[in-house]
Amino acid sequence: MSEGDALGTVYLVGSGPGDPDLLTVRAAELIESADVVLHDKLPGPEILGQIPEAKREDVGKRAGGEWTPQEYTNRRLVELAREGKSVVRLKGGDPFVFGRGGEEAEHLAAAGVPFEVVPGVTSAIAGPAVAGIPVTHRDHASSVSFVTGHEDPTKEESAVDWDALAATGGTIVVLMGVGKLPAYTAELRDAGLDGDTPVALVERATWPDMRVATGTLDTIVDVRDEAGIEPPAITVIGDVAATRDRVAEFLENDGDRGGDA
Amino acid sequence: MSEGDALGTVYLVGSGPGDPDLLTVRAAELIESADVVLHDKLPGPEILGQIPEAKREDVGKRAGGEWTPQEYTNRRLVELAREGKSVVRLKGGDPFVFGRGGEEAEHLAAAGVPFEVVPGVTSAIAGPAVAGIPVTHRDHASSVSFVTGHEDPTKEESAVDWDALAATGGTIVVLMGVGKLPAYTAELRDAGLDGDTPVALVERATWPDMRVATGTLDTIVDVRDEAGIEPPAITVIGDVAATRDRVAEFLENDGDRGGDA
Ligand SMILES: C[S@@+](CC[C@H](N)C(=O)[O-])C[C@H]1O[C@@H](n2cnc3c(N)ncnc32)[C@H](O)[C@@H]1O
Ligand SMILES: C[S@@+](CC[C@H](N)C(=O)[O-])C[C@H]1O[C@@H](n2cnc3c(N)ncnc32)[C@H](O)[C@@H]1O
Repeated sequence: MSEGDALGTVYLVGSGPGDPDLLTVRAAELIESADVVLHDKLPGPEILGQIPEAKREDVGKRAGGEWTPQEYTNRRLVELAREGKSVVRLKGGDPFVFGRGGEEAEHLAAAGVPFEVVPGVTSAIAGPAVAGIPVTHRDHASSVSFVTGHEDPTKEESAVDWDALAATGGTIVVLMGVGKLPAYTAELRDAGLDGDTPVALVERATWPDMRVATGTLDTIVDVRDEAGIEPPAITVIGDVAATRDRVAEFLENDGDRGGDA
Repeated sequence: MSEGDALGTVYLVGSGPGDPDLLTVRAAELIESADVVLHDKLPGPEILGQIPEAKREDVGKRAGGEWTPQEYTNRRLVELAREGKSVVRLKGGDPFVFGRGGEEAEHLAAAGVPFEVVPGVTSAIAGPAVAGIPVTHRDHASSVSFVTGHEDPTKEESAVDWDALAATGGTIVVLMGVGKLPAYTAELRDAGLDGDTPVALVERATWPDMRVATGTLDTIVDVRDEAGIEPPAITVIGDVAATRDRVAEFLENDGDRGGDA
């Protein structure tokens, strides 16, 4: 950029789980006012459908052989800011929960680009919640852990310690955990969790075609296969998952958006 | 209620951490349209200040000798719904993260009252985020655990397993953890966490007088005392807490809302 040009600001914005009503007021305003919105598929069809084509850039499918999609996104954010643009980087859920928002923040700071973080409603909490499942409970869960079910394959050995997670005694919420469900449910049983521990899968939470499927550590893989659950979905493991059965009849979230798979 | 009266609906609504712009669109609409808003102090002065006095009920300070505040709230929610009222139960952050929203949902379902859950932006993620700290990071944290620093004292022994939390290797976020900071930082060191592990305290995150204080497991108690950090505050423990130092210069959230303590 030439001397004197004003740098644009980058907004790292969470879209929430997909229902446009779960955007924050700030996210809705920034999407409206931004020059460009960089996004992938995770914000979902309803939110993306409301953004004018002319200012949308889908970085999920970009990048050639030269850069990874993440490298492409990092470079593009800096490039647009140097053109003086107001840029929204829109991410599903919260930008700092398994969203690589932290890496983008560090890249922007290293390039001297001012940025603002706009937290969003994470699918890790909202997915269970709209299915009637509180991730913590005074009687059942004094902690909740969010973990990726799809580890970084470049890491030498498993970065996720399923034994330790089981030992916390709290709720375990797995993101990106549809494909490897058989592997980590087995690890958790090996770690001593009861096969009867309640488990719920919440697919496309708050999307118009949301579905919920429930079972136990022993049965959930069959439940997944019979229902044909696919990503994006949240896996909730722990006693709290049984709350759904006690409250679903009076839960109005289910009424308008999906139901049992 | 007499036969034929329509039951009102109860909305269990998260307010987010306190900045009114971090309300969800749905929360803002429901607060506007509700007949009554039951709340405590946690949504903070800005959000509560925007709700007309006439429809606010502070349940934080209610309850006499007969019921606990939670029992009072449960009864009041059912009572108002039976009067046909549209009731917002407004909770700081997300209603299902250490908010006793799960208990309220079960009480409503048991009483036959229809309810809707409106997830919010939790302070456990947003507090660190607006201080420039991502709770997960591809290189530093494959999991994040949220835990209460203020255990249920009616429980026989510690419900929180600090050893297991330390063993996960992920980020640990403590809510209600200002007072017992000396106890659990000591437990985490005993469990093998390095004394140099970065720790940040985020007080009144997103409130106009937000403050951030940083240190390590070894120093954070002194840091807290010198800065005079008080509840509500979030404690973030783990390598991700050091991200703040790398990005703070370009982080615009700090500009308008608070800064280092
Ligand atoms: C890369 S992570 C991003 C998480 C996101 N930052 C958040 O806070 O929700 C992608 C995973 O998030 C979860 N996810 C995101 N949106 C979802 C939704 N609407 N319903 C269910 N799961 C969702 C799925 O587990 C998915 O594999
Ligand atoms: C009973 S818990 C409720 C948590 C809430 N449901 C949430 O999701 O943020 C209360 C604790 O939340 C944290 N908290 C809530 N709002 C906060 C804020 N604006 N800044 C820092 N901490 C906050 C503090 O740790 C406080 O002690």
